[in-house]
Amino acid sequence: MVGYVIYGRGSFNQLDEILAPHRKPNLPMVFLVDHFFDGKALAGRVPLRGNDKIIFADVSYEPKTTQVDQLAQQLKDEFGSVSGVIGIGGGSTMDLAKAVGLMMTNPGSSADYQGWDLVKQAGVYKAGIPTLSGTGAEVSRTTVLTGPTKKLGMNSDFTPFDQIVLDPELTADAPANQRFYTGMDCYIHCIESLTGTYLNEFSKSYGEKALQLCREVYVNKTGWDADSDDKLMMASYAGGMSIAYSQVGVAHAVSYGLSYLLGTKHGLGNCIVFDKLQDYYPEGVKEFKLMVEKNNINIPQHICAGLSDEDFDKMINVSLGMKPLWENALGKDWEKIITREKLRALYEQL
Amino acid sequence: MVGYVIYGRGSFNQLDEILAPHRKPNLPMVFLVDHFFDGKALAGRVPLRGNDKIIFADVSYEPKTTQVDQLAQQLKDEFGSVSGVIGIGGGSTMDLAKAVGLMMTNPGSSADYQGWDLVKQAGVYKAGIPTLSGTGAEVSRTTVLTGPTKKLGMNSDFTPFDQIVLDPELTADAPANQRFYTGMDCYIHCIESLTGTYLNEFSKSYGEKALQLCREVYVNKTGWDADSDDKLMMASYAGGMSIAYSQVGVAHAVSYGLSYLLGTKHGLGNCIVFDKLQDYYPEGVKEFKLMVEKNNINIPQHICAGLSDEDFDKMINVSLGMKPLWENALGKDWEKIITREKLRALYEQL
Repeated sequence: MVGYVIYGRGSFNQLDEILAPHRKPNLPMVFLVDHFFDGKALAGRVPLRGNDKIIFADVSYEPKTTQVDQLAQQLKDEFGSVSGVIGIGGGSTMDLAKAVGLMMTNPGSSADYQGWDLVKQAGVYKAGIPTLSGTGAEVSRTTVLTGPTKKLGMNSDFTPFDQIVLDPELTADAPANQRFYTGMDCYIHCIESLTGTYLNEFSKSYGEKALQLCREVYVNKTGWDADSDDKLMMASYAGGMSIAYSQVGVAHAVSYGLSYLLGTKHGLGNCIVFDKLQDYYPEGVKEFKLMVEKNNINIPQHICAGLSDEDFDKMINVSLGMKPLWENALGKDWEKIITREKLRALYEQL
Repeated sequence: MVGYVIYGRGSFNQLDEILAPHRKPNLPMVFLVDHFFDGKALAGRVPLRGNDKIIFADVSYEPKTTQVDQLAQQLKDEFGSVSGVIGIGGGSTMDLAKAVGLMMTNPGSSADYQGWDLVKQAGVYKAGIPTLSGTGAEVSRTTVLTGPTKKLGMNSDFTPFDQIVLDPELTADAPANQRFYTGMDCYIHCIESLTGTYLNEFSKSYGEKALQLCREVYVNKTGWDADSDDKLMMASYAGGMSIAYSQVGVAHAVSYGLSYLLGTKHGLGNCIVFDKLQDYYPEGVKEFKLMVEKNNINIPQHICAGLSDEDFDKMINVSLGMKPLWENALGKDWEKIITREKLRALYEQL
């Protein structure tokens, strides 16, 4: 679990005070900030002290192990070590911050740690400040990274942030399409978690609450307001807690193949896939289509048109490698249910 | 926040494995176990190693600072220090374990730390295993203690458990009346939090979920089953999270006076008070009375009959000292609303 959680409008203003006890002499706090904020007001509100540094992170693509390694090396070269790494942005920026924080103290490449419980050393102090709601990256014990051979996170007890600051004011200016795709990441998490075989009362309670909040935002409301930001930020947190104690399912397993091959961003990829999963999640997909229509969102079609057999095979391999996701969705006999042929047919529809 | 949370039926069986990395050479794990379990099967399942020790804690009365100090001194005399303190029981046992864990490293008396952020040193490793659901003590940053001059907790960032094990199997054999009173602690938390002025979306989400789970257990179901244990344990957790980010209200403020003077246990005291709070929480009290009736529970009446003026004054002083509770319930002008006379009249009804 994340040790310290602050939630509230304007809580970003407490960041200087929050970081103060974690500062070490001569070692900077490093703020990894989504490049979307370069030149925007939020960047000017970052409480810089001494040799603190802002790095605007290019998250046009999701984080790669090479990017993590390069950032950690740059900080080691410049400062030796740092007091902490603070991620300010969406899921990619937060995952990048967690991974760089870990690689400040763990030897080798971040690619060496893609898997479960391979990280053996605590990283430096890490804080996360989401500016988009939905991924659950603020509470997860992973950092999803694309490496030389796989898209897989550094899952470990050392991965979660030490502190998160949940300030719904920060999500108010997000572009509507992006905000929808990321919000749907949460909605899809919940459907996958609540219909999965790994469910228990803990993950169910969180999943149901997150789902209800998503519905209030995307189904019941007629427009976007401050209350939408409040609710979706809480939905993201609860959705992340739900999957931490269960697992995601078909949409995520298929979407990982897309992002590995085509670089499709996670939220968007989930939407593209979930849109075609009526056989697996009939009620969820029906409601999803309603939300897409009601919120005037465009879901790209035919993104797999023209791909080669080799391309499809790559995506199928990545997807079928996500064993726990398939087992959660389809049960222990999942390999009999989702064949390579079925999966190919699904990718061809996207 | 509690750093490590396990939830699941049978998860108590993982306790040996969970504690292993926290053992220090020659220093025991000390299990503070509710005396209710003395001679019962659960006591035999505690994973004792080396010089580990079980202490059956007498929680006929709620924890006192003198009891905390005496237990900590006993452990220092016998072992010098300990690897950790594990509380197994209801809210009293868990609060006792947290307080003893803190007093293994902090000088003086636990009475010196009754208040907010007075604890300056991390305690020893602390784990909590609830066997009754409802108090939220498993997630709180306080330990409610009766001291020489006040009933007030050691509220601090060092107070929460490092680990909790939420195993709903452990609550199956609790006596029905006690289980109800403790469950209602959660229900009352939620009503107080959700109608309070301190509410935000974070505490609201948790409060609503906990309230819904309480209703499923006490209103919708026709009998007690394993699912009741699952849901009430999750309700307790969520209810505790809700008040951690908001505050309780009138029932708790009045009930603290009862327990200070008469030693009335917290869950029961809350029920006795809430039963008469229709002016403050009309809908909640109506539903509470329905649950009392449906579950064939006896709420004691006239417990304040025959008390002296001095007794009433003591209770009124303790109650009015709980300023944040009154402010949450009645707003900034609470002192104009709840006069000593009104409070005396309320106590006389109990």
